[in-house]
Amino acid sequence: MRILVIHGPNLNLLGRREPEIYGTTSLEQINQDLMEYGRNHSVEVHFFQSNHEGELIERIQQAAEHYDGLVINPAGYTHTSVALRDALQSCSIPAVEVHLSNIHAREEFRRHSITAAACIGQISGFGANGYKLGIQALLFFNRGCKSH
Amino acid sequence: MRILVIHGPNLNLLGRREPEIYGTTSLEQINQDLMEYGRNHSVEVHFFQSNHEGELIERIQQAAEHYDGLVINPAGYTHTSVALRDALQSCSIPAVEVHLSNIHAREEFRRHSITAAACIGQISGFGANGYKLGIQALLFFNRGCKSH
Amino acid sequence: MRILVIHGPNLNLLGRREPEIYGTTSLEQINQDLMEYGRNHSVEVHFFQSNHEGELIERIQQAAEHYDGLVINPAGYTHTSVALRDALQSCSIPAVEVHLSNIHAREEFRRHSITAAACIGQISGFGANGYKLGIQALLFFNRGCKSH
Amino acid sequence: MRILVIHGPNLNLLGRREPEIYGTTSLEQINQDLMEYGRNHSVEVHFFQSNHEGELIERIQQAAEHYDGLVINPAGYTHTSVALRDALQSCSIPAVEVHLSNIHAREEFRRHSITAAACIGQISGFGANGYKLGIQALLFFNRGCKSH
Amino acid sequence: MRILVIHGPNLNLLGRREPEIYGTTSLEQINQDLMEYGRNHSVEVHFFQSNHEGELIERIQQAAEHYDGLVINPAGYTHTSVALRDALQSCSIPAVEVHLSNIHAREEFRRHSITAAACIGQISGFGANGYKLGIQALLFFNRGCKSH
Amino acid sequence: MRILVIHGPNLNLLGRREPEIYGTTSLEQINQDLMEYGRNHSVEVHFFQSNHEGELIERIQQAAEHYDGLVINPAGYTHTSVALRDALQSCSIPAVEVHLSNIHAREEFRRHSITAAACIGQISGFGANGYKLGIQALLFFNRGCKSH
Amino acid sequence: MRILVIHGPNLNLLGRREPEIYGTTSLEQINQDLMEYGRNHSVEVHFFQSNHEGELIERIQQAAEHYDGLVINPAGYTHTSVALRDALQSCSIPAVEVHLSNIHAREEFRRHSITAAACIGQISGFGANGYKLGIQALLFFNRGCKSH
Amino acid sequence: MRILVIHGPNLNLLGRREPEIYGTTSLEQINQDLMEYGRNHSVEVHFFQSNHEGELIERIQQAAEHYDGLVINPAGYTHTSVALRDALQSCSIPAVEVHLSNIHAREEFRRHSITAAACIGQISGFGANGYKLGIQALLFFNRGCKSH
Amino acid sequence: MRILVIHGPNLNLLGRREPEIYGTTSLEQINQDLMEYGRNHSVEVHFFQSNHEGELIERIQQAAEHYDGLVINPAGYTHTSVALRDALQSCSIPAVEVHLSNIHAREEFRRHSITAAACIGQISGFGANGYKLGIQALLFFNRGCKSH
Amino acid sequence: MRILVIHGPNLNLLGRREPEIYGTTSLEQINQDLMEYGRNHSVEVHFFQSNHEGELIERIQQAAEHYDGLVINPAGYTHTSVALRDALQSCSIPAVEVHLSNIHAREEFRRHSITAAACIGQISGFGANGYKLGIQALLFFNRGCKSH
Amino acid sequence: MRILVIHGPNLNLLGRREPEIYGTTSLEQINQDLMEYGRNHSVEVHFFQSNHEGELIERIQQAAEHYDGLVINPAGYTHTSVALRDALQSCSIPAVEVHLSNIHAREEFRRHSITAAACIGQISGFGANGYKLGIQALLFFNRGCKSH
Amino acid sequence: MRILVIHGPNLNLLGRREPEIYGTTSLEQINQDLMEYGRNHSVEVHFFQSNHEGELIERIQQAAEHYDGLVINPAGYTHTSVALRDALQSCSIPAVEVHLSNIHAREEFRRHSITAAACIGQISGFGANGYKLGIQALLFFNRGCKSH
Repeated sequence: MRILVIHGPNLNLLGRREPEIYGTTSLEQINQDLMEYGRNHSVEVHFFQSNHEGELIERIQQAAEHYDGLVINPAGYTHTSVALRDALQSCSIPAVEVHLSNIHAREEFRRHSITAAACIGQISGFGANGYKLGIQALLFFNRGCKSH
Repeated sequence: MRILVIHGPNLNLLGRREPEIYGTTSLEQINQDLMEYGRNHSVEVHFFQSNHEGELIERIQQAAEHYDGLVINPAGYTHTSVALRDALQSCSIPAVEVHLSNIHAREEFRRHSITAAACIGQISGFGANGYKLGIQALLFFNRGCKSH
Repeated sequence: MRILVIHGPNLNLLGRREPEIYGTTSLEQINQDLMEYGRNHSVEVHFFQSNHEGELIERIQQAAEHYDGLVINPAGYTHTSVALRDALQSCSIPAVEVHLSNIHAREEFRRHSITAAACIGQISGFGANGYKLGIQALLFFNRGCKSH
Repeated sequence: MRILVIHGPNLNLLGRREPEIYGTTSLEQINQDLMEYGRNHSVEVHFFQSNHEGELIERIQQAAEHYDGLVINPAGYTHTSVALRDALQSCSIPAVEVHLSNIHAREEFRRHSITAAACIGQISGFGANGYKLGIQALLFFNRGCKSH
Repeated sequence: MRILVIHGPNLNLLGRREPEIYGTTSLEQINQDLMEYGRNHSVEVHFFQSNHEGELIERIQQAAEHYDGLVINPAGYTHTSVALRDALQSCSIPAVEVHLSNIHAREEFRRHSITAAACIGQISGFGANGYKLGIQALLFFNRGCKSH
Repeated sequence: MRILVIHGPNLNLLGRREPEIYGTTSLEQINQDLMEYGRNHSVEVHFFQSNHEGELIERIQQAAEHYDGLVINPAGYTHTSVALRDALQSCSIPAVEVHLSNIHAREEFRRHSITAAACIGQISGFGANGYKLGIQALLFFNRGCKSH
Repeated sequence: MRILVIHGPNLNLLGRREPEIYGTTSLEQINQDLMEYGRNHSVEVHFFQSNHEGELIERIQQAAEHYDGLVINPAGYTHTSVALRDALQSCSIPAVEVHLSNIHAREEFRRHSITAAACIGQISGFGANGYKLGIQALLFFNRGCKSH
Repeated sequence: MRILVIHGPNLNLLGRREPEIYGTTSLEQINQDLMEYGRNHSVEVHFFQSNHEGELIERIQQAAEHYDGLVINPAGYTHTSVALRDALQSCSIPAVEVHLSNIHAREEFRRHSITAAACIGQISGFGANGYKLGIQALLFFNRGCKSH
Repeated sequence: MRILVIHGPNLNLLGRREPEIYGTTSLEQINQDLMEYGRNHSVEVHFFQSNHEGELIERIQQAAEHYDGLVINPAGYTHTSVALRDALQSCSIPAVEVHLSNIHAREEFRRHSITAAACIGQISGFGANGYKLGIQALLFFNRGCKSH
Repeated sequence: MRILVIHGPNLNLLGRREPEIYGTTSLEQINQDLMEYGRNHSVEVHFFQSNHEGELIERIQQAAEHYDGLVINPAGYTHTSVALRDALQSCSIPAVEVHLSNIHAREEFRRHSITAAACIGQISGFGANGYKLGIQALLFFNRGCKSH
Repeated sequence: MRILVIHGPNLNLLGRREPEIYGTTSLEQINQDLMEYGRNHSVEVHFFQSNHEGELIERIQQAAEHYDGLVINPAGYTHTSVALRDALQSCSIPAVEVHLSNIHAREEFRRHSITAAACIGQISGFGANGYKLGIQALLFFNRGCKSH
Repeated sequence: MRILVIHGPNLNLLGRREPEIYGTTSLEQINQDLMEYGRNHSVEVHFFQSNHEGELIERIQQAAEHYDGLVINPAGYTHTSVALRDALQSCSIPAVEVHLSNIHAREEFRRHSITAAACIGQISGFGANGYKLGIQALLFFNRGCKSH
C-alpha cells in the first residue's frame, strides 16, 4: 500500500511555529517518524508540503495514479478553500483529514471544516500522532473494502 | 493500561439502526473486536452503553478512579449536552471523542460538537474502526506524557 | 392494530400544569378517553409517560416489536433532543408527533421541532384531541400501506 | 356543520406535480373522497382552489358567513404570506392548516409557517388524509366549544 | 391636487378585523372622512382597495398619469413584496406609506418594511388619522418642490 | 394644548450638517416655523435640544407636568438607547417620533428604532415638515381621546 | 421548437422604469426583437406578461402542453415566491431564469433567488439580450437531450 | 419556612471539579453550611442533587407539596433544557436560579439561560454564597407576599 | 465597610415608572430602607443616581478611593454601554450588578448584559430587595477575601 | 474580436471529475468546441486554465492588453476569493462569469458568488454550453457599446 | 497647523486602568509627549478628554472653527455611538480614529467600529504612539490636499 | 533597522486599478518614495509584491532572518486568508497591517480583517502614506522594546 501525506501551509515551520500549540518536533522529524511507522505496517509513505493552494490541488489531482490513499492536513486552507474540497471530492482514492491541534477547542473560525466533507473522516487533536492514526485509518478502510 | 469505551444513546441498536449510515455490525461484535484489539496492544478495555445522559455523566465522573483513559461516542448528545461537556472537563484522565459517521458530511446540526472541546481530540468517519483509533490515540498520548 | 402513545416530560402534570395553555383534563382521563377511542376503532392503545429522555429513547427502541405505530408528544424534548430524533429514525414503525398547544403560535424556541423530521407527520394545536387525530393518522397510514 | 376546504397554489396540479412528494391522486379525486368523508360525519364540505393570493384572502374573508370552519392548505404561500395570515387572523371561524408532505423534513425554508399562528392548529405529513384529519379536528373543536 | 389613497390586503375588513388593533371604523367611513378632509384642503382624494398584489402594482403603475401623489397602506405586503417596491420605485409621483398600527411595537416580522424605501416617507401608529397625515405630507412635499 | 418638541444629538447643526440629507434650514428657523404653525393650530410649542442622552431623558421625565404631548427626534440615539426608550415608556403623555430623513432608505443600522415602540407612532422622511405632522398627530390623538 | 417567454411584475413598464438600471427599450420592442431572433433560429416565440403571481403560476402550469421550453424573468417575485418555484418545479419542460440587471451586484435582498433552483439555469446581467441567451440555452439543452 | 436546594449535573463533584472556576469546597460542606445558615434564619433547608434531567424534573414537580420555595442551580442544563423550564413553570412555589460562577463572563453559550425565565430571579457569580443569597431572596419574597 | 449604591437612568422615577414592572416604592424609600439595612449589618451605605452615562462612569472611577464595594443597577445602559463596562473593569473594588425585574423573562434585548462581565456577579428579579442581596453579596465577598 | 476563456481550479479534470454534476466531456474537447464556435462567430478564442489563484489574477490583469472580453469560470474560488474579484474589478474589459452546474440548486455555500459583482453578468447551469452563451453575451455587449 | 486630540471615556484613567492592555503611562504624560511631538512637527496640539458622549459630540461640532484636524480615540463609544458618528460626519475637518490596543485582537464586540466610517482612517494597536501616527496622518493628509 | 514591505494581490496594478479608491500613484513610485522615506529615518526598506497567497506566506516565513519588521498590505487576502494569518502569527518579528482605503467605510465584507489579529496593529485609510505610518509604527515599537 502506498500513501501520500500532504502537509498544507505553514506546516514547513513545525517545531518553530507556536510550539505551545503545535509542538516542538520539526516536519522532517515527523516525516522520518512516519516513514518508519509506515515500514512497520507495510506501507510506503511519501510526503508533500506546500504553502500554495494550487500546488496542493494539483498534487491531489495526480495522487490517484500513484497512491492508494491520502492523509492531508490542509491547515489554514481547511476553513476557507472550496477549491481544495473540490479537488478532494474529485479524487478517486480515500483521503483522511488530520489536524495537529484540537480544532474544536480553538477560535470559532477554526471549528468548521470545509474540506472534511470530501474526506472519509477527520482526526483532530493528537499532534503528530494524528498522521499515524490517519495511516491506520486508511489501512482499516482498505481492509474493509477488500472484505466486501 | 485500562481504557473505558463509552457508547452514547441509540448505539445499543448498532447493526439494526440506519445501517446505510452506521453499518451492520452489532455493538456486541464491536466490543468483542475492541477487546481483542486491546489485548493485542496490552490494554484492558471495558465498555459502557447508556441512553441516559445522567448515567453517562456519572460513569465519566467515576472513570478517573478506575481507568487511564476514555473513548467516548456521545452520539446524539454530542451536539446538545453542556452537562456532558462539563463532566468530561472535570475528568482528570484523557478522553477521545469518536463518531462512526463523518459528522462533517451530514446535516448542519450534526457538524458542531459541544463535547469535543473537553476531549483531547476527535475522530470521526471511520465506522467501528474509529474506536480502535481512539484507543491508539490514548496509547500515543500516554507514551507522550511518559516521555516528558 | 396496536398503538403506543408516548407522553414526554411534564405531561404527567396535565390538568394541573398551566391549564390556560394545556387544559384541565388529567393525563389519566386523557388516556382513558383514548383507550375507549381506540376500542371504537379496533385499535389497542397502550401508554407510557416519562420525564427521562433515556427512558423515552428506550421505549421507542423496543416499540417496534410490540406495536404497529407510535403517537408521541416529546414535549420539552421536541426542541432540543437529537438523541430522541435518532431513536425515532431507527424505529421501523411509523410515528406521529403530537403537541397539545399550537407550537407555531408560541415562543420562538418552541416553533422548531428537531424530532418531527423523524416522524411521518406532526399534529399541533388541538389539545388532547390531537392524540385521537394521531391514532387516526396511523390508521390511514396503515390502510395506505396495505392498499399498495 | 359546513366546512370550506381551501387549496392553495399549484394544488390544482395534484397527481401530476412531483408525485414522489405529493402522491398520484388528483385534486378532484381528493375532493370527491372528502365530500364522502364529510357525508359520513354529517359535515357538508365545499371546496375552493386558487393560485391567486388575493382570491384566497377574499374567500377566507367571506367564509365566516357561510361556514363553521376552514381547512386550508396554503401551499407555497405558507412560508411567505403575511397578508394571508392577516386574513385568517381576522376570520371569526376556526381554521386548520394542512400540509400534504411533512414540512419539517424538507428544505429549510419550508419548515417555518407564517400562517399557522393564525389557525387553531397544523397537520402536516399525512398526504390527502391530512384534510380528513383537519375536518375531524374541526369536529372535535366544535364539540369542545359546545360542551363549555 | 389629486391624490390616490391605496388600501392593501384585508383593509376592506376595517372595523370588523381585530378592532383592538385596527379600531372600529369601517373603510367606507374612513374614506368618507378623508374625502371631506381633502375638500377642506383643496385636494381631490380617490380610493382603491385590493387584496391582490398584482392589482395594487397595476394601480400604482397607472397612478402617475392621473394623480399628483399616492398615500399607500400596503398592509401585509409591506414586509414581503419586492414587486410592490419595484412598482413604487418606478412611479414618478411621490408616495407616502401609512400604517394604522405602530409597526415598531408589534411582532418582529412587522417591524421591517420592504416598500418604505421606495416612498418619500412612512407614517405609522396613528390609526385612520395616518391617512390625513399622509395627505398633509404630500401637500408639504408639493409646496416644497414648487418653492425650489 | 402645550407641546414640547425635543431635538436629539447633532440637530443643533441643522442647515450645516450634511445638507444633501438633512436640508439647509437651520434649527432656529425650523423652530420659528413650528411656533407659528402651533399658533395657527392653537398649540403652544416649546423646544429643547440636547446632545446629552441624560439631559434628553430628564426633559422627558419632567415633560408630563408641563405638556400635553411630545414630538421627539432622537437622532443618533434612536438606534441604540434603551435608556431613552425607558424614559419615553415611563412618560404619561403621548410622544411622536420624528425623523427628517427616510430612515428606511438609509444604512442598515438606521432602519431599526429602539425608541419608536415607546411612542404612539413614528413619522419619517418629510424633512422639517415631519415636526408639523407630529404636532398634527398629537392633535388628532388628543381629539380621539376626548371623543371617548 | 416553441418557447414561451414570461415577463414578471413591472416588466410592462420597461423603457420607462428606472432606465439607468433596466435600459430604455420598451417591452414591446424587446418582444419584437425576440420574435425575429426566434425566426432566425427556427424557434416560435410567444410572450406573456403579468403583474399577478397567480397568473404567472397558471401560465407556467399550462405551458408544458403548448411549449418546449420557458424563458422566465420573475422580477420582484424571484426573491420571495415559493409558489412560483413550486409551479416551475412541477413543470415538465425546461425553464431558464433571466434577469436584466446583474442581481449579484445589487441590494443584498436581490442577490438570492428562490426560483432559480427550479430552473435548469440562470442568466443575469445582460439586459434584454439575456432573453436571447435564454432561448439559445434552451436550444442547446434541447440538442443535448436529443443527442442522448 | 421549608426550602429545597436542588443541585444539577456535576455539582456532586464540587471541590474537585475545575476548582479555579468552582472553588475548593465540597458539596457536602456547602450543604452543611447552608443548613446552619437556614437554622439561623428559621428556615428548614433540604437538599437534592442529581445528574439526571428527569430526576430533577420530578423533584421539582413534587416540591410544591413539601416546600415553600426552591433554590436551583441547573448547571449544564441551564442553557439547553426546555423540559426543566416547563417543570419550573408548572411549579406553584417560587424558585430562584443560582450559578456559582458569573455566567455573563464565560463562554458565549453559558451566557444565556433557558430556565431563568421560569424562576422569580437569578443570582450568578458569588460562589457557594449564591445559595445563601437565594434563600434570603425567598425569605424576602415570602415576606413581600404576606405583607400584601 | 462602606458601600456605594449606584442607580442608573430612569430609576429616579421609581414608584411612578411602570409600577406593574418596577413596583410602587419610591427611590427615596428604597434608599432609606437600604441605609437601615446597612446599619443592621455594620455597613455604611451611600447613594448616587444619574441619568447621565458620563456621570455614572465618573462616579465609578472615583469610588475605589472612598468605598469598599459597589452595588450598581445600570438600568437601560446595561445592554448597550461598553464605556460603563470599561469603567467597572478599571475599578479596583468589587461591584455587584442588580436588576429590579427578572431580565431573563423580558424582551430579547434586555436579556443580555454588557456590563455584568465586569462585575463579580449579577442579581436579577427580586425588586428593591435585590439591592440588599447585593450588599449581602459584597459582605460575603469581603469575608471570603479576608479569610484567605 | 478576441476573447480569453479562463478556467479556474479543478476544471482541468473535466470529464473525470464528478461526471454526474459536471458532465463527461473533457476540458480539451470543450475548448476545441469553443474555438470552432468562435470561428463561426468571427471571434478568436484563447484559453487559460489554472488551479492557482495568483495565476488567475495575473492572467486577468494582463488580459485587457490582448483581449476584448473575458469568459471566466472561477470554480471553487467563486465563493471565497476577494482577490479575484478585485482583479476583475480592476480589469477594463468586460467579463462574464460562467458556471457549469446550476449553483442556485446546490449546497448553500455555492449559492453566493463574490466574484460575479465584478463581472457584467453571470450564466449558470448550462454545462459546457454556458461558455458559448458567455461568448455570445460578450458579442451582444460589444455591439451594444458600439451602437451608443 | 492646529490639531485637537480628543480622548473618550475612561482614558482619564490611563496608567491606572488595566495596564496590561493600556500601558502604564498617564494621560497627562501622553499629552505632554504629544505636545512636544507637535512642536517638533510645527503643529499646535490641544487636548480634550470627556466621559460624556454629549460633551464629545459638542467639542467635535465646535472643532472645525478652531482646528485643522482631529485625532480621536472614542474608546467605549467606538462600538455603540451613532450620535458620535453623526457628529464626525458633520464635521468639515479631517478626523483620524486611534485605538491604543489592537481592537482586531480583542473581544468580538470591540472589533467593529461605528465611528471609523466617518473618519478618514483608523490606527489601532500602537499604544500611545498611535496618537503621534494620527498627527502624522493628518500632516500627510494636509500636504496631499495642498498639492492638488 | 531593516523593514520588508509586502504588497498583496492586485497592488502591482496601483495607479491603474480603480483610481477613485486607490489613487493614481504607481506601486513603483510608492516604493521609491518609501525607500527615500526610509533613508531619512535610517531604515533600509525592501519590497515584495505577489498575487500568490503561497508566495506571500513564504516570504513572511523567511522574513525574520533578514528583517526587523514587516509592513504588510494583504489586500484581498485580508478578509479570507487563515493561512496568511497563521504565517504572521508564526513570525517572530513585528508586523503592521496597512490598507490604502478606509476599509471601515466600504462594503460589509471588507470591514473585517482575519489577518490583523496576528499583527501588532492596523493602519487603514491614508493611501500610500499608510506605509510610511507603518514604518513609523515599527520604529516606535522598536524603541519601546529597547527602552524596557
